[in-house]
Amino acid sequence: MELYFTELHAPGVGLLLKVERELLHKRTPHQELAILETREFGRVLLLDGRVMLTEKDEFIYHEMLIHPIFAFVEPGRLRRALVIGGGDGGAIRELLRYDEVEEITLVEIDEEVIQAALEYLPRVASGLRDPRVRVQIEDGFEFLERHKGAYDAIFVDSPDPIGPAKVLYSEEFYQRAKASLRGGGSLVLQTESPWYHRSQLRKILQNLRKIFKFVEVYLAPVPSYPAGWWSFTMARDLPFELHRRELPAGLRYFNEEIREALFALPQFLKDELGL
Amino acid sequence: MELYFTELHAPGVGLLLKVERELLHKRTPHQELAILETREFGRVLLLDGRVMLTEKDEFIYHEMLIHPIFAFVEPGRLRRALVIGGGDGGAIRELLRYDEVEEITLVEIDEEVIQAALEYLPRVASGLRDPRVRVQIEDGFEFLERHKGAYDAIFVDSPDPIGPAKVLYSEEFYQRAKASLRGGGSLVLQTESPWYHRSQLRKILQNLRKIFKFVEVYLAPVPSYPAGWWSFTMARDLPFELHRRELPAGLRYFNEEIREALFALPQFLKDELGL
Repeated sequence: MELYFTELHAPGVGLLLKVERELLHKRTPHQELAILETREFGRVLLLDGRVMLTEKDEFIYHEMLIHPIFAFVEPGRLRRALVIGGGDGGAIRELLRYDEVEEITLVEIDEEVIQAALEYLPRVASGLRDPRVRVQIEDGFEFLERHKGAYDAIFVDSPDPIGPAKVLYSEEFYQRAKASLRGGGSLVLQTESPWYHRSQLRKILQNLRKIFKFVEVYLAPVPSYPAGWWSFTMARDLPFELHRRELPAGLRYFNEEIREALFALPQFLKDELGL
Repeated sequence: MELYFTELHAPGVGLLLKVERELLHKRTPHQELAILETREFGRVLLLDGRVMLTEKDEFIYHEMLIHPIFAFVEPGRLRRALVIGGGDGGAIRELLRYDEVEEITLVEIDEEVIQAALEYLPRVASGLRDPRVRVQIEDGFEFLERHKGAYDAIFVDSPDPIGPAKVLYSEEFYQRAKASLRGGGSLVLQTESPWYHRSQLRKILQNLRKIFKFVEVYLAPVPSYPAGWWSFTMARDLPFELHRRELPAGLRYFNEEIREALFALPQFLKDELGL
């Protein structure tokens, strides 16, 4: 039997991925959760039929979600971090590379994502049991309401803006996130594909600009994601001035040149997004 | 009827593309040639079942094949250009944006690719009838043998290194290309996906480094290509020093920031390719 997973990235275009076997496939109280073993991308975590990460290319996504903001924070000043979503632990693993990060809180709505990652994706989830990490099972939107002025950086590592994650793209959510930052703190979000989801990205930027003084977009290739091309957005009230600090060891994608080139965007995106 | 085109990019992973209709599908003396109408990518040109270009994203590929090298040539010094392959005309269209380019020769082995592009992809092929352009139907490898010291830049816009294009990736081909350059001239090649075809890319670089003193790689996202991520390589005997010349009008991907950031490569690629 040849088993293929398909994910449509837009009406009429998608990914075709040969599946060796299904390791996990269940319905949690929040969503459909699956882990597939594939030949080309190793193990793949899916939520509601969409690829959240693959063992082969998650390093690009997670490094690019976490490391760029450190270039714009004075060394030693990013001590308390909050990750919303990202129950797989990949973002946590990257944050733990910094000694200056004293405390990391992961707020994940679906406990079963965390359990699945710990069981099937140990290299991704490894950091979840670090003593600096506190895991809270809760809706991120509600969590923020009780934690004002608490974080130096908030990372939104959420699924696409449909289903339970939809609220994480609303103006109200960005308001709450801002209120949960300490002075000068930063919000960093994964903001979908700059190719297929440009109208969503435009809307996200419009909302962020109502609430934060400075908003910047950067991109990275993520081969298993729609168009193989992903966007991230940083928002805060301080300008983005580059600190050329030493990078943590062990990075496979991010380096000093990528850091210098971070805001180099294609002309059509600059034009369409007003960047 | 729902008609889907699939292209496997590696064993067990591929692109799924809904086809509205088949506009052309034939066997030429050289290869299988097809043009499909798709919803998401417009018209798609296929050779031997592989996507060569789509109307929606060909601008990224063609701009990135042609424009970067101009940043490393003194303004006014790239007068005679040769394009090998690329019968669709996209590379020609980009070259024609420079007044300094006096003469462009296109050497395409398969006349029917040119005819198909002129008929079905007019926005790509438009430049093929420009008076500065000379079209030669011939094998590029043989053509070079008769044209020594003739070109300021040679662009290899070839299909993947299988079938008729295989020779275009050989050491012998690079030797001939070098002999066909005028002093200080440059060879620019599309060099496959930095994700799926890394071992090929490594081999190409090894061969190029035997023949040229300076070899540089750069990348671009091309959503319809394998992994959505493509590589290009420039080779010559002069160092790559950046000239911040004015860019031609009308570019949609390439701009000054992309030019400055051109050689920013992911760490894993630098490590694996010795860059």
